[in-house]
Amino acid sequence: MSDQASKKPLHGGMLAAKALKEAGVEVIFTLSGGHIMPLYDGCIDEGIKIVDVRHEQAAVHAADSWARCNPGKIGVAAITAGPGVTDGVTGIANAWRANSPILIIGGQGPFENLRRGSLQEMDHLGVVRPITKFCDAIYQTKRIPEYIELAIRHAVSGIPGPSFLEIPMDIFMASLSEEEAKAVTIPRIRTNSPRLSPDRDEVRKAIDLLRNAERPMLMAGTSVKWSHAAGEMNRFIAETHIPTYTNGMARGSVSPDSPEFLNRSRRDALEKIDLIILAGTLLDFRMRFGQTIPADAKIIQLEMDATLIGQNRQADVPLVGNLACSFDGLLEEMKNRGVQLDFSPWRDELRAIENAAEAKVEANLNSDEVPIDPQRMCRELRDWLATVGEPIVIGDGGDIVATAAKILPVRSEGAWMDPGPLGTLGVGMPFALAGETGPPRPPGGDRVRRRLVRLQWDGIRHRGPLRPADPASSETTAHGDR
Amino acid sequence: MSDQASKKPLHGGMLAAKALKEAGVEVIFTLSGGHIMPLYDGCIDEGIKIVDVRHEQAAVHAADSWARCNPGKIGVAAITAGPGVTDGVTGIANAWRANSPILIIGGQGPFENLRRGSLQEMDHLGVVRPITKFCDAIYQTKRIPEYIELAIRHAVSGIPGPSFLEIPMDIFMASLSEEEAKAVTIPRIRTNSPRLSPDRDEVRKAIDLLRNAERPMLMAGTSVKWSHAAGEMNRFIAETHIPTYTNGMARGSVSPDSPEFLNRSRRDALEKIDLIILAGTLLDFRMRFGQTIPADAKIIQLEMDATLIGQNRQADVPLVGNLACSFDGLLEEMKNRGVQLDFSPWRDELRAIENAAEAKVEANLNSDEVPIDPQRMCRELRDWLATVGEPIVIGDGGDIVATAAKILPVRSEGAWMDPGPLGTLGVGMPFALAGETGPPRPPGGDRVRRRLVRLQWDGIRHRGPLRPADPASSETTAHGDR
Amino acid sequence: MSDQASKKPLHGGMLAAKALKEAGVEVIFTLSGGHIMPLYDGCIDEGIKIVDVRHEQAAVHAADSWARCNPGKIGVAAITAGPGVTDGVTGIANAWRANSPILIIGGQGPFENLRRGSLQEMDHLGVVRPITKFCDAIYQTKRIPEYIELAIRHAVSGIPGPSFLEIPMDIFMASLSEEEAKAVTIPRIRTNSPRLSPDRDEVRKAIDLLRNAERPMLMAGTSVKWSHAAGEMNRFIAETHIPTYTNGMARGSVSPDSPEFLNRSRRDALEKIDLIILAGTLLDFRMRFGQTIPADAKIIQLEMDATLIGQNRQADVPLVGNLACSFDGLLEEMKNRGVQLDFSPWRDELRAIENAAEAKVEANLNSDEVPIDPQRMCRELRDWLATVGEPIVIGDGGDIVATAAKILPVRSEGAWMDPGPLGTLGVGMPFALAGETGPPRPPGGDRVRRRLVRLQWDGIRHRGPLRPADPASSETTAHGDR
Amino acid sequence: MSDQASKKPLHGGMLAAKALKEAGVEVIFTLSGGHIMPLYDGCIDEGIKIVDVRHEQAAVHAADSWARCNPGKIGVAAITAGPGVTDGVTGIANAWRANSPILIIGGQGPFENLRRGSLQEMDHLGVVRPITKFCDAIYQTKRIPEYIELAIRHAVSGIPGPSFLEIPMDIFMASLSEEEAKAVTIPRIRTNSPRLSPDRDEVRKAIDLLRNAERPMLMAGTSVKWSHAAGEMNRFIAETHIPTYTNGMARGSVSPDSPEFLNRSRRDALEKIDLIILAGTLLDFRMRFGQTIPADAKIIQLEMDATLIGQNRQADVPLVGNLACSFDGLLEEMKNRGVQLDFSPWRDELRAIENAAEAKVEANLNSDEVPIDPQRMCRELRDWLATVGEPIVIGDGGDIVATAAKILPVRSEGAWMDPGPLGTLGVGMPFALAGETGPPRPPGGDRVRRRLVRLQWDGIRHRGPLRPADPASSETTAHGDR
Repeated sequence: MSDQASKKPLHGGMLAAKALKEAGVEVIFTLSGGHIMPLYDGCIDEGIKIVDVRHEQAAVHAADSWARCNPGKIGVAAITAGPGVTDGVTGIANAWRANSPILIIGGQGPFENLRRGSLQEMDHLGVVRPITKFCDAIYQTKRIPEYIELAIRHAVSGIPGPSFLEIPMDIFMASLSEEEAKAVTIPRIRTNSPRLSPDRDEVRKAIDLLRNAERPMLMAGTSVKWSHAAGEMNRFIAETHIPTYTNGMARGSVSPDSPEFLNRSRRDALEKIDLIILAGTLLDFRMRFGQTIPADAKIIQLEMDATLIGQNRQADVPLVGNLACSFDGLLEEMKNRGVQLDFSPWRDELRAIENAAEAKVEANLNSDEVPIDPQRMCRELRDWLATVGEPIVIGDGGDIVATAAKILPVRSEGAWMDPGPLGTLGVGMPFALAGETGPPRPPGGDRVRRRLVRLQWDGIRHRGPLRPADPASSETTAHGDR
Repeated sequence: MSDQASKKPLHGGMLAAKALKEAGVEVIFTLSGGHIMPLYDGCIDEGIKIVDVRHEQAAVHAADSWARCNPGKIGVAAITAGPGVTDGVTGIANAWRANSPILIIGGQGPFENLRRGSLQEMDHLGVVRPITKFCDAIYQTKRIPEYIELAIRHAVSGIPGPSFLEIPMDIFMASLSEEEAKAVTIPRIRTNSPRLSPDRDEVRKAIDLLRNAERPMLMAGTSVKWSHAAGEMNRFIAETHIPTYTNGMARGSVSPDSPEFLNRSRRDALEKIDLIILAGTLLDFRMRFGQTIPADAKIIQLEMDATLIGQNRQADVPLVGNLACSFDGLLEEMKNRGVQLDFSPWRDELRAIENAAEAKVEANLNSDEVPIDPQRMCRELRDWLATVGEPIVIGDGGDIVATAAKILPVRSEGAWMDPGPLGTLGVGMPFALAGETGPPRPPGGDRVRRRLVRLQWDGIRHRGPLRPADPASSETTAHGDR
Repeated sequence: MSDQASKKPLHGGMLAAKALKEAGVEVIFTLSGGHIMPLYDGCIDEGIKIVDVRHEQAAVHAADSWARCNPGKIGVAAITAGPGVTDGVTGIANAWRANSPILIIGGQGPFENLRRGSLQEMDHLGVVRPITKFCDAIYQTKRIPEYIELAIRHAVSGIPGPSFLEIPMDIFMASLSEEEAKAVTIPRIRTNSPRLSPDRDEVRKAIDLLRNAERPMLMAGTSVKWSHAAGEMNRFIAETHIPTYTNGMARGSVSPDSPEFLNRSRRDALEKIDLIILAGTLLDFRMRFGQTIPADAKIIQLEMDATLIGQNRQADVPLVGNLACSFDGLLEEMKNRGVQLDFSPWRDELRAIENAAEAKVEANLNSDEVPIDPQRMCRELRDWLATVGEPIVIGDGGDIVATAAKILPVRSEGAWMDPGPLGTLGVGMPFALAGETGPPRPPGGDRVRRRLVRLQWDGIRHRGPLRPADPASSETTAHGDR
Repeated sequence: MSDQASKKPLHGGMLAAKALKEAGVEVIFTLSGGHIMPLYDGCIDEGIKIVDVRHEQAAVHAADSWARCNPGKIGVAAITAGPGVTDGVTGIANAWRANSPILIIGGQGPFENLRRGSLQEMDHLGVVRPITKFCDAIYQTKRIPEYIELAIRHAVSGIPGPSFLEIPMDIFMASLSEEEAKAVTIPRIRTNSPRLSPDRDEVRKAIDLLRNAERPMLMAGTSVKWSHAAGEMNRFIAETHIPTYTNGMARGSVSPDSPEFLNRSRRDALEKIDLIILAGTLLDFRMRFGQTIPADAKIIQLEMDATLIGQNRQADVPLVGNLACSFDGLLEEMKNRGVQLDFSPWRDELRAIENAAEAKVEANLNSDEVPIDPQRMCRELRDWLATVGEPIVIGDGGDIVATAAKILPVRSEGAWMDPGPLGTLGVGMPFALAGETGPPRPPGGDRVRRRLVRLQWDGIRHRGPLRPADPASSETTAHGDR
């Protein structure tokens, strides 16, 4: 880094920005704070966009959203010491549960005065440790890039998630000596973790189980997204005609127009299946801890990490690795062995149930009731969204998300975002903000963004003619605005 | 608890509310959440007021404010699992640094499904451990009152601060069997920690040092408030005429009309003193880690806890214990030994410096500049506040708090509130809310509450003719509203 | 520190040793390790004795014992990085539960290579945090003395306990620049925490309760020792003739020849009392969580820290502070109010029970059974100890400690040592070692040390004619050796 | 589990033992303690051997050794509450750094009295959290098997390591109701984590780099062992004639008779190479953080986990996954593309250097010096070991391990054991113990076990004619005993 050094002294903020640039970071989300000023300086030099928000929670939610909108990249938030970091805790926790790869850079009081009671000095690492994949403090200016590489490596490896780095003010502001500047290098930083393939023996066993199955279903969940596996999965679905449901971040990974895509018949399917492929779907509360799967049904579980195999109920065949590789492996094995799988009769059976279920709610979708039925509202929204190019819909709320999920079609991966399993309310605005700050789209990509804004129940009572989906809940419904 | 048991089954929420009642709790601050519903039920039974806010951060800030406004009581917030608890982290951290005794009750997924991946299950305890005096989970319904006593005991003992209790949903909802209901008792709960007196030998040494001092000062800080020591301290000041400055939560503990109260001459005083009494004032960043005290000046430090004695600079005499007891001890020792201390000449010298400093800013206070000078604004506010009964002014911001501190007189302890050493922005509204929900005041207590609302610099730029106090800062000034 | 600087460069080990010297440390216990070499260098310079053992667990147990044997001083152990620190964990935990004020200095890989995977680099702080009062790493050579003061302050304040400091190898070895050497100072370090007195109102209430009591008992425990309160307590006992039992580290604080001292009638006493003074005795498992105290008996609790008041059962009167001050306060209040308390009739009643109980075991004490009855063994030991000057008996084991406690008289505070509430087996040798390395005794102090060595049950079965106290236990008995 | 339930009530210890049995556990190492008694009961029922030692550290070291000796299985230690668990901390830390898959079951005070101060109640989880892959407490008897599955799953997945489970005494002792006993099932437990294959694109890139290399080396380390990859690696070595060095647990994975195996020329090789294959060898202190690899040499890194790729220096090609799969992939790619690699000239060059280095030490190996030269001692040991069937040599010490590593040939994987990167002294005896308690060997398997016993330097000085390898070190040499 010698040519650089000749021009002006390299300070910590510049080193950090250079490392972020190397990692392909295009934007940081922040609330301007004194402890992290040097980073802004560095980002301006490196052409990294700085988006300033009004509460650090929003900065971290935006980084989470950015990571979701830009597959293979990492979202970054910078938050100042003390209340800056604590304000970001919900954002970190939400990304933790949603497996969103983000890096949070936090300020801290000066290293020189560690433990002396500086302004806003506090134990940030202790607070964020349980909700990060990696967290650490940096006490040497010259090693800032090295730590950033380390933090990002942990964030993107295996099941992704947040990493946190704290940089004391004086370490961040200090400039390298000429000698140090010559010695320092920015390490190569990968934001796309290597793809791993599952054990071939297990792939073989999976095909054996599928050959014996008559009523299987595929339940696609979050790891489909983080594996970038939609393409391979859809090939498998098309090849086998396996009835398919989606949850979590896999919503949109299967086209609503696909003959295998089902949405309203899951409960019926679960009662009858003899095999389930859990493709990145955990058997947590959303699947009633596995209890709704018949006791004698076989389980093939595709996950990115072996520690998630068998949670709450053992899998018969574990396929660990990147889900794209796993689906590829299944297709290849079928081809090699000349295995033909055709579940279309069973799919048709479920399609009939699905159609009946849709007919049942038809009345609600068109209800003229006042206050308005939330299903009617979602239907209106659906009709309007159909007129828009490629909307991203952001669900912010509890019941309304569940209601909308049944009615609004999601036409592509990433076209729907919701908080994820932590269920944080209030993600709407910052999620949308990150969508807006995305990279320029290709010419024909007439991308229009929309969001669902959470309305409070009392707000609704006082301000508009909307009916709650469920009176026991404090939230109720939502409206779409541009 | 036999008569109770005969009527209706005691569930966890009722037990919790009974324990809170025993602890003298009058109000809880919360954002309604599913995991903590049983507590509301119990609070209604026990006549404990429930104040519902829109973000859990506000609930905890309000509990913090409540504890400050109601000396000898504990503030309580109840926040739901997952994002509820994480949203409260800034409030907890702020109370931690401000030594505010509060209890936070957090929800959690069901005990029955611990570690299975319940909705919003997460490691709350890990997150809050570094910023609480005590934190724990309760796994037995019948022991809820016992844990509440334990948590409150830790919160109020020694230097006060926050405690956190997590109660899984099913434990909270479960009802005691008839037998258990008979056996359970609500323990007596103290919210006023016992007062301790310092070692008499040290009191004697302190008097010896004072007798040899010519230019002492008294710096009153936060532990004056948490010791409820204003009365005893003022007696000591009146007796000795020692020049007195205040910071932290001691603002208002000395009347601005007291001849010994000084505000604008601290830097001059610190250069000349030969002794300083640190009454609950830490030598942290606010005192430049003790470096501004002359090397040969003697230090008498009054603190509630021995671990704070000598931080960053050793005290010559430590007086550990309740500060009221310590000031009492000093007065008693003076009386017993017939010691007369009269620092009025030195006080007069500082008064002259103070007057000169005030004259210097006179022009700013009355400046007609546009945008308005923040000092002018504070002066206007000062004049207006003088027409109001007994205002509580809440400072929410950074620079504006420092500016206002020089201009707005604080006429009684508790009449000024600011975030404290964590410097959290945004405490204004919830702090005010808790003030409003206070106990009924005595007939003549024509108490009027006011607050300073934080304005963002960009807000100001776009919305009003106000000039920044310091252009390098993102915040600038403030306005008063009723 | 200018004169020093002129001679030879000050390195981290020398700074550490100077700080220890300032704190009155006379000896460190260690197992020689590469990461902490500089400390040995410094200790040799400062005349601090270095005792080298063969397992770090022993080093920390010895520091624990040292602190117990040298009231008002702090025990110190130095242990090398990685397995050195982990080997010390049991010693730290034992001191933590026994409230023994010790400082452990641990090595660590170089600061320069933090997180790079140095030899024996590991997260020591994470491991010891739950069992220390304070723990931290030092990353600046010049601040080593400051951190040592801070660590010791926490160790000795309030309820004492262990503190842990980790010093990376290169920080420990680095020498100060001439300028730094001039600027650095060794802070004054207190190892005797200030004594605090309880609230006088509570003292008054205690006397009121005692005046109404007819059958009180005094239960003296560990905080009597850490308050150095034996003198004041014995004055109170002599004045009131209150029947007195001891447990924990209070054993020996009341002379076995005192008419009020009782040992074998505690269970009977607990059934009949109408008041109990808990003098530093917790209501933990050793007191069956307070359940054996009659429901209507009054409780006066003397403790050093308010957080321990009311654990498992609320006290009627809390006397918080140094127990010497509390007993002084009780005596003073009695004198001032002219209160006379005489519990000798009730004491005599218990004495009769005690005598009957002793008669019952007489046969066992003199049993000729083979294998030998452990009570017989203890009796023999008792007779022999009576011929020795001032033995310190160290109980190392489980059942044998309980058996011996009934038979061996403890003639002075500190003349008995056992692991304490953690019940660690194996403390015998290192405890004895520290006793041996104590300061020179006064001329007449013909101090002879003895210890009880733990024997394993299988050992006994194979090697000697000893009978187990309780066959269900793996330990059984013990023998005395010189 | 209905037939079981009819016979006798299932208690927690039985459930635990059934789960261990399901996991293929054959032996537990323990020191008999009261809190964990039920487990022994269960183990006897299930035919699981119980090995009792005299210090819990040894129990955990033995479990570590067991896991190393029995690939694909998990080592188990059971240690009682309080000092039992803390005594085990070094064993856990050692397994943590050595990636040894073990399960530690710890006792705890009763659930019913949680936080009340039970005998030996302490925060075990806080202590072991930083050195375990998973740790938790079990508070429901019926869920014990579920937690054991969870703990083992974490221990064996990815890079293996220790898991810790704490079971309160009453939960361990409690029996299931008849209904619960019917409902409970023992989950299937895998102790062999699924094998993952690396990305094929990266395999291709690796071959491209190898084709351009002239002077590559292969550095085989610990993950070769945990991947069970010795077979595949040796095929690759034989195919390419790549010069190969081993460290960590890969010692013995390449036969000392292999023409590619080198031992004394590593430093020379590192100066000249243009490519290095890091096969499970980290660039930590043992590789000087990667600084000894020439700046322009290419790095191909094979690791089991992506977070270890690029530590301290970025890899040019990462091959993440099971190392057997990675070597297989390389061979397959070579075959498919018809790539021939032949590094024998370069290997011969290093062989010449190696031979020269061996000649140099020849004199030391045969030295008649008194005290004995440690190299001579090792040579004698070498000669004697050659007469023994299949010895397992256990290195316990520091310098002696390094010295022996150069002289003693290791003829098969697992025939050498040393502490690993934590460098714990004292593992010798427990490591040997676990070797002895291994499963019966096949008829011809005339396995004789030997160990190196650590001798202290002072011991040597006083007791025997041995010369230190390095006088600066406290350890020196060793002797072999049967």
